Amino acid sequence: MNTQQSKPLVGIVMGSPSDAPTMKKCADILDELSIPYEMKICSAHRTPERAHTFATTAAERGIKVVIAAAGMSAHLAGVMAAYTHIPVLGVPMDGKLMGGLDALLSTCNMPKGIPVGTMSMGSHGAVNAALFAVSILATSNKEIEAKYIEFRKKQSAAIPEDVPVAE
Amino acid sequence: MNTQQSKPLVGIVMGSPSDAPTMKKCADILDELSIPYEMKICSAHRTPERAHTFATTAAERGIKVVIAAAGMSAHLAGVMAAYTHIPVLGVPMDGKLMGGLDALLSTCNMPKGIPVGTMSMGSHGAVNAALFAVSILATSNKEIEAKYIEFRKKQSAAIPEDVPVAE
Amino acid sequence: MNTQQSKPLVGIVMGSPSDAPTMKKCADILDELSIPYEMKICSAHRTPERAHTFATTAAERGIKVVIAAAGMSAHLAGVMAAYTHIPVLGVPMDGKLMGGLDALLSTCNMPKGIPVGTMSMGSHGAVNAALFAVSILATSNKEIEAKYIEFRKKQSAAIPEDVPVAE
Amino acid sequence: MNTQQSKPLVGIVMGSPSDAPTMKKCADILDELSIPYEMKICSAHRTPERAHTFATTAAERGIKVVIAAAGMSAHLAGVMAAYTHIPVLGVPMDGKLMGGLDALLSTCNMPKGIPVGTMSMGSHGAVNAALFAVSILATSNKEIEAKYIEFRKKQSAAIPEDVPVAE
Amino acid sequence: MNTQQSKPLVGIVMGSPSDAPTMKKCADILDELSIPYEMKICSAHRTPERAHTFATTAAERGIKVVIAAAGMSAHLAGVMAAYTHIPVLGVPMDGKLMGGLDALLSTCNMPKGIPVGTMSMGSHGAVNAALFAVSILATSNKEIEAKYIEFRKKQSAAIPEDVPVAE
Amino acid sequence: MNTQQSKPLVGIVMGSPSDAPTMKKCADILDELSIPYEMKICSAHRTPERAHTFATTAAERGIKVVIAAAGMSAHLAGVMAAYTHIPVLGVPMDGKLMGGLDALLSTCNMPKGIPVGTMSMGSHGAVNAALFAVSILATSNKEIEAKYIEFRKKQSAAIPEDVPVAE
Amino acid sequence: MNTQQSKPLVGIVMGSPSDAPTMKKCADILDELSIPYEMKICSAHRTPERAHTFATTAAERGIKVVIAAAGMSAHLAGVMAAYTHIPVLGVPMDGKLMGGLDALLSTCNMPKGIPVGTMSMGSHGAVNAALFAVSILATSNKEIEAKYIEFRKKQSAAIPEDVPVAE
Amino acid sequence: MNTQQSKPLVGIVMGSPSDAPTMKKCADILDELSIPYEMKICSAHRTPERAHTFATTAAERGIKVVIAAAGMSAHLAGVMAAYTHIPVLGVPMDGKLMGGLDALLSTCNMPKGIPVGTMSMGSHGAVNAALFAVSILATSNKEIEAKYIEFRKKQSAAIPEDVPVAE
Repeated sequence: MNTQQSKPLVGIVMGSPSDAPTMKKCADILDELSIPYEMKICSAHRTPERAHTFATTAAERGIKVVIAAAGMSAHLAGVMAAYTHIPVLGVPMDGKLMGGLDALLSTCNMPKGIPVGTMSMGSHGAVNAALFAVSILATSNKEIEAKYIEFRKKQSAAIPEDVPVAE
Repeated sequence: MNTQQSKPLVGIVMGSPSDAPTMKKCADILDELSIPYEMKICSAHRTPERAHTFATTAAERGIKVVIAAAGMSAHLAGVMAAYTHIPVLGVPMDGKLMGGLDALLSTCNMPKGIPVGTMSMGSHGAVNAALFAVSILATSNKEIEAKYIEFRKKQSAAIPEDVPVAE
Repeated sequence: MNTQQSKPLVGIVMGSPSDAPTMKKCADILDELSIPYEMKICSAHRTPERAHTFATTAAERGIKVVIAAAGMSAHLAGVMAAYTHIPVLGVPMDGKLMGGLDALLSTCNMPKGIPVGTMSMGSHGAVNAALFAVSILATSNKEIEAKYIEFRKKQSAAIPEDVPVAE
Repeated sequence: MNTQQSKPLVGIVMGSPSDAPTMKKCADILDELSIPYEMKICSAHRTPERAHTFATTAAERGIKVVIAAAGMSAHLAGVMAAYTHIPVLGVPMDGKLMGGLDALLSTCNMPKGIPVGTMSMGSHGAVNAALFAVSILATSNKEIEAKYIEFRKKQSAAIPEDVPVAE
Repeated sequence: MNTQQSKPLVGIVMGSPSDAPTMKKCADILDELSIPYEMKICSAHRTPERAHTFATTAAERGIKVVIAAAGMSAHLAGVMAAYTHIPVLGVPMDGKLMGGLDALLSTCNMPKGIPVGTMSMGSHGAVNAALFAVSILATSNKEIEAKYIEFRKKQSAAIPEDVPVAE
Repeated sequence: MNTQQSKPLVGIVMGSPSDAPTMKKCADILDELSIPYEMKICSAHRTPERAHTFATTAAERGIKVVIAAAGMSAHLAGVMAAYTHIPVLGVPMDGKLMGGLDALLSTCNMPKGIPVGTMSMGSHGAVNAALFAVSILATSNKEIEAKYIEFRKKQSAAIPEDVPVAE
Repeated sequence: MNTQQSKPLVGIVMGSPSDAPTMKKCADILDELSIPYEMKICSAHRTPERAHTFATTAAERGIKVVIAAAGMSAHLAGVMAAYTHIPVLGVPMDGKLMGGLDALLSTCNMPKGIPVGTMSMGSHGAVNAALFAVSILATSNKEIEAKYIEFRKKQSAAIPEDVPVAE
Repeated sequence: MNTQQSKPLVGIVMGSPSDAPTMKKCADILDELSIPYEMKICSAHRTPERAHTFATTAAERGIKVVIAAAGMSAHLAGVMAAYTHIPVLGVPMDGKLMGGLDALLSTCNMPKGIPVGTMSMGSHGAVNAALFAVSILATSNKEIEAKYIEFRKKQSAAIPEDVPVAE
């Protein structure tokens, strides 16, 4: 199934083409769980109108969850959350300054009234954002819920108990 | 309507009785929007079995979203997320060490595979966790969605444009 | 002279009414140097359309410099800079998390292409933003330049050389 | 002597197979001092039941000290300490975010009542955890005490006083 | 029972008289569990010979565990660990600089070979150091082990499940 | 056009020859927009008299904006701002300590009365300093303003919307 | 003896009158040890010429050590060190931002070639700067050396060994 | 002249052989200025008696300044300062944790009464420690003073004013 051509349930935006390799790991999880999504580059600062349009039309286009990835003064998730009422997940890209603490604080520490659900930094967060989006969709879709529960079980089972022995 | 006596859709847990005044602000928002919830004290470290029971039974009890608040080595949201597949929101309590950075990092920086949606620190996060939970419920409930859109509109309208003048 | 009623050259925006006492110190400097300004509350997250309108109309309304003050995930200066080409100065409000480091990093660490001139945190920054705005206006206005040079001279002269003696 | 096949006195757990090369240095010290141990991969978040089983059965299996190594939101030592009364040592793995400060704070800043003895970060901590475990065993075992005192003496003697001269 | 007059099993040292109110909470736990201890002020920097004497004679005086509390450049635990082979627990006092991060890093990040078991900061750590010392003693003393298990059970039972209701 | 040979409007100073590759990106932008500038190495600490001369003569030489780049204890922008009334922009060089946080705080956190407009760290800040200088010149020069508006438009248009596909 | 009227051996400068109460503790130590000193307010940013004059004339006026105290972007010690070859001690004033980390990094992290000897932050550093200056003078003055050795001995003796007992 | 064979005026100690390449840069400066010194490896934690001996005999052996370099829980400068009254300079080695912030805080933030003069981190600090030691010796030695003034002049003159042009 080509999940990118179905009507998307998840909208992924990122602030820069350089974020694409990291966010590809987010898309891979959605592909694996057959969740249709769209993915766009959309800078809060350099293409603010594009970001505005994406956020204000997301709900009416059937998007249920927005995932926004950005680094440095990471405002993208906040812009999304300001313009839509659907859940917005933020993925702080890890940069040079303090290992990405700038992006983490910019994404997470939102003022009262406009929530963003912040994930771990970098590629861990890219994967987790996909899974969190799936868990939201699963709250009202038994099929997705079953797939997610299965995914989690397999994930746990795949962790070996024995420590690998170096030769 | 007494939202605490309906079948709860949101489960709020906190690591210590001292978190209660902050998390009361979370409950107030859910009361205002008539979302039924339950609220428990449940330490990841001092009452781990209680936390385990809460998390593993949440889904079957009809809980759709878990909100977990803790400070310091804030493991509670992580424990919840480890034991349930429903969305878990973390609220880092602000403590003395670096203004709560310990709780922020402990809550947010989850490993790949087990997501937590981290909110702002302290009372801002308590309010935002309630609103984020509402936004999740709104993805499959038109009535809640309408109430949340209305809430957001009123919130925006309530912000004065003019700067208050000191006498 | 009531500098708030002249055609404003400086636009001051702040994210919350609670920033007003700090930003009053910014306005006081502009009043002292007879620079007309306007001052609005305008949250990047809770009133994004208001922020959008302010920024996109600033240049045509004759504003030469924008001063934006915000705390936490301080996106307001970034939003202003995204939507206007006139200089934008950011004042990070000092909050609880790490003494305002969140606001400092959110304001300052802008991506390549959209600059913000970040000032010191809190009330020091509020005063400095006014002076920096004056220095910009002074680049093309001899009268303002003369007043600013005079201000700086008086400021230096007012610093005592002798250490005050406690009784 | 194959210390891994004797009845283990020390239990080493780590959150991920990627921690194995670092924790091998912990095992090497125990091997050198002939302290029997067991070593398992056991994620607090992805295999929480495995972690629960390890911790709750540790004392009855004869384990005297648990060493838990994890990175990021490093909850593993805290989970161990929540479920057992025997001493738990935490080794924060050094990751990208602020050089491992996330793991350090998550491991160390435990709430009142559930102690974790936190070691240095990374491979220094892996070695020190082994030595600290030995020092605990030495409190009631003269033979181990003698070996540890000897180890410390040799370690001191092995540090050259003269600065190496580059050619 | 006056545990301070029995032959002490635990030695508590602190860098300054100002640490005494915090470390009193450590002593209270040892009193409650009837563990004999001694408690001294002993600055690593201002009374280094006293610290040296304490550390080098601890083992022969029957001390089984040393607890060292200090703030700022908190070297006291490191000095103890350098001069004795018995387990040393460090309690970083929380000061003004970054909420005590200076003391935390100074205490915890020991070089390979000389371990310190670092506790939480401040009064949480003072209590936890006592409990960790008890857990060490419990590895070879069934009576102490039984008392500690009982303490932990009572501690868990004392945490209310219901959130206190404000009037 | 060789913008370095026209009468310079922008003065670029940097603390060390090692900053030159980064600040070349600043000069490139000014070249692209045909803004004449001069560029000097001028250490606040090792050549303080040179820095003093540069700053005190900047205005009379026709310089309208100073851009100062430095790392570590980054005092250069502060020294410039102390000795001239024209706008001073600071570019914190990113070094090893905490990813350049030392330079960021040294540059930004100026006392009340002597403002510095701090840019992002490193090469992002080098580019942004050039653009901010242009925006200051644009406040009184329609031609420069038109060029800068055009630059910003092209910059936005150059950001692709579609995520690049890896082969 | 009125040490302020003798020919000063130590020059104390501070960036603001608000630093005076802290630096009074520095002066008190010098008074106690009968070391003549002078003390001036001298801002690196607001009175740069005064700072320049102080530093460039210090050696010829017989000053042997300069002590410079400043907060925030604490450049004063660096300015002193840039303009004189005599030893310069820096005292970072503790402010709101990260407990004074800004001043610590600004003071300490000097580039290669221009050293500053940085003391602890705040009042601890004020006292220590005086003692360090005394230790420098003592390298060539037996009388001062004897007084300093005596001071240190008394200081050690004044630290009680017994923990104060609260009633 | 072989400055290592003259009666040393400066004593350099470092915590580990791995610090030798960095501290070689300190020795090179002393060689260049013909200041006799001695250089030893001497760990505060692994060879505490050696450190104790070095510090307590330094003054009587004619050492005028001690330079102590260490990383992580960098206690070596503090140990030196505790045991001698001559000036002690600390060089924090830059390690992985937060770019060496652990060593910086451990070295610098000494308690009231026992001063350490902390230098920049890593190789910058190694060079600066040598220069600071020279400046101390220069307070009572005209020949050294003249050489140091000359060194500083050459250093300033060696900094090019023109920015190097890349081909």
